[in-house]
Parts: sequence; structure tokens; C-alpha cells
Amino acid sequence: MQLGTYLDRVRQNVPLVHNITNYVTVNDVANALLAIGASPIMADEVADAVEITRICNALNINIGTLNTRTIAAMQAAGEQAAQLGHVLVLDPVGAGASALRTDTATALLTQLPLTCVRGNISEVKALAIGSGTTRGVDAAAGDAVTEATLAGAVEFVKHFAAAHRTVAAVTGAIDIVTDGERTITIHNGRPEMSKITGTGCQLSGITAAFLAANPDDPLDAAAAAVAAMGVAGEIGWAAMLPGDGNSTYRNRIIDALYNLTGSQLEEMAHYEEH
Amino acid sequence: MQLGTYLDRVRQNVPLVHNITNYVTVNDVANALLAIGASPIMADEVADAVEITRICNALNINIGTLNTRTIAAMQAAGEQAAQLGHVLVLDPVGAGASALRTDTATALLTQLPLTCVRGNISEVKALAIGSGTTRGVDAAAGDAVTEATLAGAVEFVKHFAAAHRTVAAVTGAIDIVTDGERTITIHNGRPEMSKITGTGCQLSGITAAFLAANPDDPLDAAAAAVAAMGVAGEIGWAAMLPGDGNSTYRNRIIDALYNLTGSQLEEMAHYEEH
Amino acid sequence: MQLGTYLDRVRQNVPLVHNITNYVTVNDVANALLAIGASPIMADEVADAVEITRICNALNINIGTLNTRTIAAMQAAGEQAAQLGHVLVLDPVGAGASALRTDTATALLTQLPLTCVRGNISEVKALAIGSGTTRGVDAAAGDAVTEATLAGAVEFVKHFAAAHRTVAAVTGAIDIVTDGERTITIHNGRPEMSKITGTGCQLSGITAAFLAANPDDPLDAAAAAVAAMGVAGEIGWAAMLPGDGNSTYRNRIIDALYNLTGSQLEEMAHYEEH
Repeated sequence: MQLGTYLDRVRQNVPLVHNITNYVTVNDVANALLAIGASPIMADEVADAVEITRICNALNINIGTLNTRTIAAMQAAGEQAAQLGHVLVLDPVGAGASALRTDTATALLTQLPLTCVRGNISEVKALAIGSGTTRGVDAAAGDAVTEATLAGAVEFVKHFAAAHRTVAAVTGAIDIVTDGERTITIHNGRPEMSKITGTGCQLSGITAAFLAANPDDPLDAAAAAVAAMGVAGEIGWAAMLPGDGNSTYRNRIIDALYNLTGSQLEEMAHYEEH
Repeated sequence: MQLGTYLDRVRQNVPLVHNITNYVTVNDVANALLAIGASPIMADEVADAVEITRICNALNINIGTLNTRTIAAMQAAGEQAAQLGHVLVLDPVGAGASALRTDTATALLTQLPLTCVRGNISEVKALAIGSGTTRGVDAAAGDAVTEATLAGAVEFVKHFAAAHRTVAAVTGAIDIVTDGERTITIHNGRPEMSKITGTGCQLSGITAAFLAANPDDPLDAAAAAVAAMGVAGEIGWAAMLPGDGNSTYRNRIIDALYNLTGSQLEEMAHYEEH
Repeated sequence: MQLGTYLDRVRQNVPLVHNITNYVTVNDVANALLAIGASPIMADEVADAVEITRICNALNINIGTLNTRTIAAMQAAGEQAAQLGHVLVLDPVGAGASALRTDTATALLTQLPLTCVRGNISEVKALAIGSGTTRGVDAAAGDAVTEATLAGAVEFVKHFAAAHRTVAAVTGAIDIVTDGERTITIHNGRPEMSKITGTGCQLSGITAAFLAANPDDPLDAAAAAVAAMGVAGEIGWAAMLPGDGNSTYRNRIIDALYNLTGSQLEEMAHYEEH
């Protein structure tokens, strides 16, 4: 697996990624996609979302700040993407925190041939067993994936991915990316990334870009996206000066994505295959 | 009153703050809440907003870019928060500038047991006497609180707070925070803060966090939030370099909130009790 | 033509600009308007949008992330602005990429006395001849305005402007601003500006401000706005340090708008009249 190659292909192919996503972090998702070499577009009215999906290479559905109108757009655009065989990513933001979120994410997971589900462990537990302990939009402390709990978490996520025939990219202190058979764990990133809103949403967007540019290797492409975000978090953190805080860190991470090269990703990525 | 203590408690308690807020400044509200040590979540569809309110410690309602759907969510989530005895903050953005805004804010003020109303003087005048001279979302020049007009403004805001049994936090060149009995005026901040969109919205968000973390002292907690925002504005301004403008200043203020300590807040806050 | 004077008048008059715009770049539009010396407000619910329009000096309609509710607000607020003789700017984001976008922009163009249409060449082609080759929200490569294609593009845009009795401001590698009689081409800006989401949206917002502050010279005022954005892109780029990327560049451009003086604009603007 050459992670850098997957990034290089994003920059060569410039995939057009349609995002139906929350209004909290949407600007950062757009700039992260541009930074990684893709092209973002957003539409959330049913008629518009379906047609925009047709001209894109991938659809990234993020359920944060969902409403009845945008849920309809998610479903219709998702079906259109499925018919066209497009890359489909679901970010189940806050699944487990409300019935509307859990039910919407579950319906999308059941009805659509998702290429990838990208979320935190609590959200994926909520989808898998209906009983995550999501605390708002962050993973619950009791769910955290650490060295001590890694083996069990890997088994859990593998089973989830296999059951839903998707790549699951579950991010946290240790990231788990699996297609149900092969599993890659990734040890990049910084805990301070959780003090910025939207690093997860950005990752879901760029995962869609990596998958679209690397259609033959969804597992490896998703792992490369996860590693790229983690590496950008490390590079961004290394550039922090006294007085800098989470707002500057936000900029620094997107800047790092912008400047990230395939060979740099290769060199800095810490991962292992199980 | 130890302002620093109120900040320390935010960082210790990590209150989960639900924000039904405008899409212009929502990302900054989220990052400001993370910076101050709280955890943000946003939901604005009725069913979702009510359920998300239940898992939170505070609800921050901001009426900028309101629409009929989100007004329904504000009312339903507000009632839910009231039933649970949660902290409730109202930011009446643009009250006085349109009937929909004035009427919506007035209805929320009348129907909900607000812990705090945080706005500019024109907005609060619009709520109090139906005839503010709001110029868009900024206070009108004729309404400005200066040393010359302070005594009258304090009396006005005290009466408003007493009449509505809430803490009123009216911010401008001089900030007035009062529960109708005790009044604290605060002399922090920079005029350049008005050249960034959303410093008021950010303040309303972090005020909800301060109130949630300090349930026994709503007046002092709100004053601490107001002082923290003003101090962050001063620290952020001091870090400005040649060529920097309002976009960098926006980042610098949130960075300053991120790094702000209780003792620093204590030391830099300029306030007096009346 | 003294471009600097048009900027000076924005800073003197502080026009209040109402923006019905997409939620992807709305925060940057607001901060760009503040940077240039104007005052932004956003409302998109019909009743609110019409009333807010009345207290403003200009209305900027941007169809990115449009939906049926906001389309109604665009039309109603547009009619209100027309009745009051206000400046009206249309940014047809993504026209040509979907029927809803093309049809909505066409309807607004047909029904409203637009002061200015600000878009890329593919979007304007879609409005003119119903067959642009818009690739998402970016101009298609085949449409690009270069020295080689400039003469033909100028003729095309002149005809569009004359036919619709508006100023057309078509931006790209070379910008074309014309009222159908006089044409100004502008050679400022950096290609890296296309790696930030929203520089076009920001330009549409500040164009509305320039037009409102300079009611007697719409063509020159629009050209000044276009030049200001390009010059800010150059100043922002010159301030970039190693490791900086598109996120920092975004801040740097708005910072440059904030610090831009009339004489600096005059000195750095590269334009010619045809």
C-alpha cells in the first residue's frame, strides 16, 4: 500500500464532490476539499441535489443540522448516486444523540450502497446496536478507542463493515479503517484536533475525494484520507506559535492539507495492517 | 466576585451548549465555545432540537437568519429547556429591524424563563419599548452607551431586567450586565471588534456556557463571560501585526479565548459594580 | 476614472448590504463587506427579507445552496429592492450546472432590473444561451477567458449586458466589466484565489457595496470592486509564508481588503478601457 499514491491521484483527477452537509462546518469542508486537490459543490434542495449529484464524482452526506427538507435531498441524491455507481460517503454526525439523527442515518445505511461510513465510535455504535452513548457530536469517554480497547473495537468495526458491505472509517485517538476483511489502524493526529469544530466533517469530505480518485482500492483510499487528515493535524500543530489557539490551528490544518505531498504523507503516516 | 473562578468552572464542567443560531456566524460560535472549554451542538429541526436540548446543559437561541421552521424549533426547544430548568439565553439579533425579528424575540422573551438576554442596546430597546432604532444588526449611533449616557442606560437596562426577571447583558463601548438589582459595568474590548461579524453571537454562546457552569451566580457568570470576550478582544488586538485585518483579528480573538486563564481574566477585567 | 475614489466612497458611506446568499461562504461575505467598509445583513425568510431590504442600500442575491423557500425570498426581496430603486446584484452561482439554478437565475434576470450580474464566464453563458459548460461552481476550462479568446469574450459579454440593460462583471484570469457600451478589462488577481471557496461570492457582496456608494457610475464602481478584489488577492499572496495554504490565504485576502486604501487600489489596479 502506497498511501502517497492515493493522494497524488486526487490531485491529478480533481474529483468533483457533492456535499449535503451541515451549515456549521460547511465552509471548512469546502476549503479542505480544495486544499486536497478536489472541487466541492453543495446543494440540498431535492431537485437541485439530484441534478448536481449527476455531474459529480462522489456524494458526501453529513447529517449534522439535518431537517426534513434536507433529509429528502439526502435520500434522493443518495439514490441517484447509487444508480450511477458513484462514491457514497455517510457521516452520521450525532447518531445516538437524537432519534431523528439515528433513524435518518440508519435509513441511509440500509437503503444506500455506501462506499464508506466515516464517524466516531459512539456514532457507529449507535448505528450498529441502537445504543451508543453519544455525547452531543463527540464520542463518549466510555467508548474511546485506546490501546487497551483496540482489539475489541477492531472486531466490532469489522463486523459492522462486513454486515453493511462498506468501508468503515472510525476515527478517534486510534483510527480504525476496515472493509470487514482487511483492517488498517492509524496512529496519526493530535488530541487538540477535537478542540476545533469540523475536523471530522472535513475528513468525510476528503474521504469522498480519495475514494472517487481511487475507485479500485476503497479501503486503502479511505485509510489514506484518514492518515492525511491526521498528518495534517500534526504538521499544523508543529506550526503553532505562542498565543495561537484553536482558530489558528483550524487554518494550519487546512494549510497543511494544501501543502501535503504524496511522499510527505507516506513518510509521516503511522499505520499497520491487521 | 472572582471572575476567574467562573471561567475555571467552565473548563472543569465542559457544559454542552445547544445553539439554534444563524448560519452566518455559527462556525465561530462553535469554535468560541470549544475555545472557552465548552462543547457545542447545533440542531434546528423541531424534533431534533427538542431531543438535543434534553442532553444539553444550556440552550442559546439566536434569531439571526430565522425562518418559520427554525422559529418553531426555537419555541419548542425553549419550552423543553424551561421544563428541565436549563440555562436559556436569547440573542435578539436585529430585533427592531423587522417585524418578524421583533415579534419572534418578544414572544420568546414573554413565553420563556430566560436566564439571560444578550444583545446590543438598540435590540434591547426594541424589545422593551417596541421602537429601537436598530440599523441592521448593529446598534444605532443614537443609542450608543457612552460615559455621558451611561447612567440613563443603566437605569433602562435594570428596569428591563427586572421586568422580565432575567439577566440582561447589553454590550457596546461600555457593557451593562444587570439582574435588575445589582449592576456590573464592564470596560473591556476594542472598537475594532465590530468590524468582525459574529463577536456578539460568540459572546451569547459562551455566556450560555458560563451560566451553565455557574448556576448559582447568573449575574456574575454573565459578567464574567462578557469580560472574557472583551479581554480576548484586547489580547487578540495586541497580537495584530502590520497587514493584519479583521479576518486575522477574528482568529486572534478565538485564539485568545482558547488560551485565557482564570487569573488572566481576573487581572485584565475592568469592571465596577453599581 | 479614479478607482480609488469609488473605494473611498464605500468607506465614507458605509452602505448597508442585504445578502440572500449561500451558507457555504456567507461568513466570508460578511467579513469581506466589513473589511471594505460596508455593513452586512442577511435574511432569507420572505417576510423578513422584504422588510430587511427596505432598510438597506443594496441587495445581493447569490443562488448557491438555493431552496424553494429562499428562492421565494430572492424574488420578493428583489421586487421590493426594484420598487425602491435599490442596487441589485445577482451572482448566478452554478447556473448551467442544474435546471433549478439556471431557471432561477434566468427568472431573476428577466424579472428584476439588475444593476449588475457578477459571475464566471460559464455561468453567464448559461444565462445567455442556455448552454454553458459549467463544471460545478467553477468555470469550465473550455470557457476560460485568456488573451487568445479575449476579443470574442468581450463581444459576448457586451451583448449580454446590453440585452439585459445591466452591468456584467465576468471574472476569471482576465476580468470583463461592461455595461454594453463601455468595457473595462482587469488583469489583477492570482490563480490561487480559485483554491479558496468564496472569493467570487465575496466579490459579489462588495460589488453591491461599491454600487450603492457610487450610484452615478455603476460601470466604474463595479470595475473598482473587481479590481479591489484582485488587488487584495495579490497583496494577500505577497504576505504568504512557507507552510501557508488556502486557509491562511483566505484570511490574508480579507485582511488586505480591510487595509486597502483608495490610493493603493489606484496604484496597483491594472485595467484598460475598450
